[in-house]
Amino acid sequence: MHTLSFETRKRDEFVNLTRQIQDYLEREKLTDGALLVYCPHTTAGLTINEGADPDVRRDILAALTRLVPLQGDYRHAEGNSDAHIKASLMGSSVLVPVANGQLQIGTWQSVYFCEFDGPRSRKVNLQFLPGSH
Amino acid sequence: MHTLSFETRKRDEFVNLTRQIQDYLEREKLTDGALLVYCPHTTAGLTINEGADPDVRRDILAALTRLVPLQGDYRHAEGNSDAHIKASLMGSSVLVPVANGQLQIGTWQSVYFCEFDGPRSRKVNLQFLPGSH
Amino acid sequence: MHTLSFETRKRDEFVNLTRQIQDYLEREKLTDGALLVYCPHTTAGLTINEGADPDVRRDILAALTRLVPLQGDYRHAEGNSDAHIKASLMGSSVLVPVANGQLQIGTWQSVYFCEFDGPRSRKVNLQFLPGSH
Repeated sequence: MHTLSFETRKRDEFVNLTRQIQDYLEREKLTDGALLVYCPHTTAGLTINEGADPDVRRDILAALTRLVPLQGDYRHAEGNSDAHIKASLMGSSVLVPVANGQLQIGTWQSVYFCEFDGPRSRKVNLQFLPGSH
Repeated sequence: MHTLSFETRKRDEFVNLTRQIQDYLEREKLTDGALLVYCPHTTAGLTINEGADPDVRRDILAALTRLVPLQGDYRHAEGNSDAHIKASLMGSSVLVPVANGQLQIGTWQSVYFCEFDGPRSRKVNLQFLPGSH
Repeated sequence: MHTLSFETRKRDEFVNLTRQIQDYLEREKLTDGALLVYCPHTTAGLTINEGADPDVRRDILAALTRLVPLQGDYRHAEGNSDAHIKASLMGSSVLVPVANGQLQIGTWQSVYFCEFDGPRSRKVNLQFLPGSH
């Protein structure tokens, strides 16, 4: 298992991890199977969506905030219930197929860390799972 | 890795891929582990839910459209921000256990491709991950 | 593949499965890779979120019920369309990295079975996928 560490800069933010993940595959010569990208935090998640137009990330974050506002009928006393809920809506991991050492994501896809309670020091864990032969 | 290609026929639609996925396992004699079904598109996703009553699929699609309407406070200029948001809510992949060459889904479960910006030519990638023994 | 069976006690409930999953890894001496925890039901799901303060679970369930009420524009005649929709929002599985025989979840994370149509007899399937090395 390998860990990527990074800093987030806003309360709500999508951080593009695609290049670092692809670099890890190449460095470790991992060729065929799937890569698990796992978020060990409870107020952040992972998703795969468009990498080209930054307005897509903005629209996803805005929709999540409209559906799950910062203030609401919450009991958790830390003031970040919205972040926990958004984390479960996005999910704690993504699993990406790998072939010939390349992430098999679509042309328009990027892998995003979804920060919902930043800015913070964050990390994700990478675990490669070999495919069948 | 194997690719399934198909055409969707509506803007919002659930396409049942269960039989094609099971056929792939049998053709390739893949027996024990898990099958990753991955969507390389950014305006579509994957989910597992009831295969018996088509009203369940209709109700899921209707709820998603109520929560994330076609028109809204969106900046992405292509007019399909709702589809990107729904894709992240459903997720880009499902991972299904396989034992004795059979998908280990529940009696009422089917694997669905979730089209949110059709009709289009679409595909999913299949990657088998062997289990431990 | 291994099956965990249990009873849920409320209509909506998060059941913490973390200890049973960790026990399974130790009993089977599974050390490095990832564990797939799979829900074969269509009105329940799985998520990973905070295990410390029970108010977080309560807030996630309350937010899901606000977004997807019990009564609504539903056609499925069994009266549990909300549960099917919530199941797809949470997802049918979680995949957790494992290193040195330990679940690599974060300090505050627990693995939850999400009951949305209980009380019922439920189960999850566990499938270990070995890592590379």
